[in-house]
Amino acid sequence: MPPQLVIGNDEIFDAHVGGKLSVELKAPLDTQRALSIAYTPGVAQVSRAIAADRTLAARYTWANRLVAVVSDGSAVLGLGDIGPEASLPVMEGKCALFKAYGGLNAIPIVLDTKDPDEIVETLVRLRPTFGAVNLEDISAPRCFEIERRVIEALDCPVMHDDQHGTAIVVLAALMGGTKLLGRDMSSLRVAVSGAGAAGVACTNLLLAMGVSDITVVDSRGILHSGRDDMNGVKVPEELIATMAPDGIVFALSNPDPEIHPDIAAKYAAIVATGRSDFPNQINNVLAFPGVFRGALDVGARRITEKMMVAAAEAIFAVVSDDLAVDRIVPSPLDSRVGEAVSAAVAIASDNPV
Amino acid sequence: MPPQLVIGNDEIFDAHVGGKLSVELKAPLDTQRALSIAYTPGVAQVSRAIAADRTLAARYTWANRLVAVVSDGSAVLGLGDIGPEASLPVMEGKCALFKAYGGLNAIPIVLDTKDPDEIVETLVRLRPTFGAVNLEDISAPRCFEIERRVIEALDCPVMHDDQHGTAIVVLAALMGGTKLLGRDMSSLRVAVSGAGAAGVACTNLLLAMGVSDITVVDSRGILHSGRDDMNGVKVPEELIATMAPDGIVFALSNPDPEIHPDIAAKYAAIVATGRSDFPNQINNVLAFPGVFRGALDVGARRITEKMMVAAAEAIFAVVSDDLAVDRIVPSPLDSRVGEAVSAAVAIASDNPV
Repeated sequence: MPPQLVIGNDEIFDAHVGGKLSVELKAPLDTQRALSIAYTPGVAQVSRAIAADRTLAARYTWANRLVAVVSDGSAVLGLGDIGPEASLPVMEGKCALFKAYGGLNAIPIVLDTKDPDEIVETLVRLRPTFGAVNLEDISAPRCFEIERRVIEALDCPVMHDDQHGTAIVVLAALMGGTKLLGRDMSSLRVAVSGAGAAGVACTNLLLAMGVSDITVVDSRGILHSGRDDMNGVKVPEELIATMAPDGIVFALSNPDPEIHPDIAAKYAAIVATGRSDFPNQINNVLAFPGVFRGALDVGARRITEKMMVAAAEAIFAVVSDDLAVDRIVPSPLDSRVGEAVSAAVAIASDNPV
Repeated sequence: MPPQLVIGNDEIFDAHVGGKLSVELKAPLDTQRALSIAYTPGVAQVSRAIAADRTLAARYTWANRLVAVVSDGSAVLGLGDIGPEASLPVMEGKCALFKAYGGLNAIPIVLDTKDPDEIVETLVRLRPTFGAVNLEDISAPRCFEIERRVIEALDCPVMHDDQHGTAIVVLAALMGGTKLLGRDMSSLRVAVSGAGAAGVACTNLLLAMGVSDITVVDSRGILHSGRDDMNGVKVPEELIATMAPDGIVFALSNPDPEIHPDIAAKYAAIVATGRSDFPNQINNVLAFPGVFRGALDVGARRITEKMMVAAAEAIFAVVSDDLAVDRIVPSPLDSRVGEAVSAAVAIASDNPV
């Protein structure tokens, strides 16, 4: 697939040398006084205080607002089970987005185990290290059990972004698309191709929003020009041609959409993808930084469906007066989104400030 | 104990609000092009490459040179078993020192378990996340078994800093002290008070250096003015008075030295403590940043005794031409130390570049 924005491999790999993140000091440690405050003997006062009242760790350490971006590398982008090492560039990118669009510190935690028991157990042991867990690129159906159990085990916000981050942005985009086309969301006929993490979560959130006619089709994987079974590619093309007028296509597989946006555009009124280099990018970055930021700002223990719907409405609201076929969601670069989502999620939580 | 550098509690606590670390982006993510490189679709190229050749993770992620500062909070400074949450300010300080004095990224990993099996198992599962492990503030005798087993289980540099970082700097200081006093290290009579992590490691490293007359005394804890059994305080004072002329006292408990440096100075020619606010600070920051930096620079799998001795010699060499009773080790602020230690450790490794 020829992207609209051509970036050479050299430039991509050069930008990744040594990784994309850096741990920095909030204040320099180049004087005796600074050392005596941040390390011994001064730090002992802070440790003593937290030992006496553990809740003070939320105020005097970074952990309470630190997001652990956790993956086992079992379902990375659309690349499949490529392992924890190979998932790291994606997790680093995610952490970078948490900082750039949510103002939150985040660290990649990649696990050399795919066993749900071991993943849950490991996060329980790591609990004092972080303040929230963004589960990432964990394959279905394991991801459903793992997310449920991690939520049960930890007293902090936990969200599998491939499920709910995607569902929030898809819902926001559908709000934009239906408004633009003058259609009623509850009367939509929706086909979901793929019953993985994102497909299931999108279906659930759409059902919660009153979309009742949803057909979920199981997928046999990414359809792209490199596959041997090229017949497979023709199936969605033919299906696309049978769509009702004013159809909406979200071809969200990443990095290779299930159908080329230019082909989809021949048959659908609105086309969106997951890629940065096409219009209408259904990019989770519109959701997760603000969702976690809002939850952490108010000390929420859970990220509820109500908070997710509020996030989608906030994303939609940013572009609702300015919709176009190539603009049903805000640009991921739109700096208004993070704050809008964060504020909406905080208000929708059970303990707004 | 009245410190020479008076710092109010307010200033200390204010400096800790929100923690002392920040995760930053190495390049901004404020353009579509930057997003397409650092995240989808560009990042997929890097993940694909690592999936095909896992060793490329060392080049294209931050993990290979990331130090995990790992603690269970069971022996924090001289404060004892205060738990993982209360240990966090110390671990954050440690991470800050890794960056400031070794140029290495480091993240605190605090564990809600004290079980050696679980600690080792957790680090094995986290292995792809980091490139080295600095074990910190883990109580003796568990720390000996845990360090041994983590070294066996992981193919990367592992060091319990309370043991070996301390031993390296004590050795460096003893090199400085004996040279200054014109004494021969192998003829020293050494008493080690405390058979914990540091006491045992110091004893072992001194034995390896040819110091054969070492008496290790078990300790009943920190002796300080706040204790009920004040008789205890008199014991070391009396013992100090029986020392041979030209004695050397290292009162290294932190934050409260076993004996006040001013009292020790009445009976000993050279006094050192672990505190930032007294002269001759036996501060592990002289060792650990350079030790890990040197090991990671040459891709060393192990931190050997030879590398530790080389580190001590490098620290000593920085002040060897400029020794004084209040200057047997370099200042922790001395920017020459990190590079000198790093270079010496790299050369002393089995695979120098």
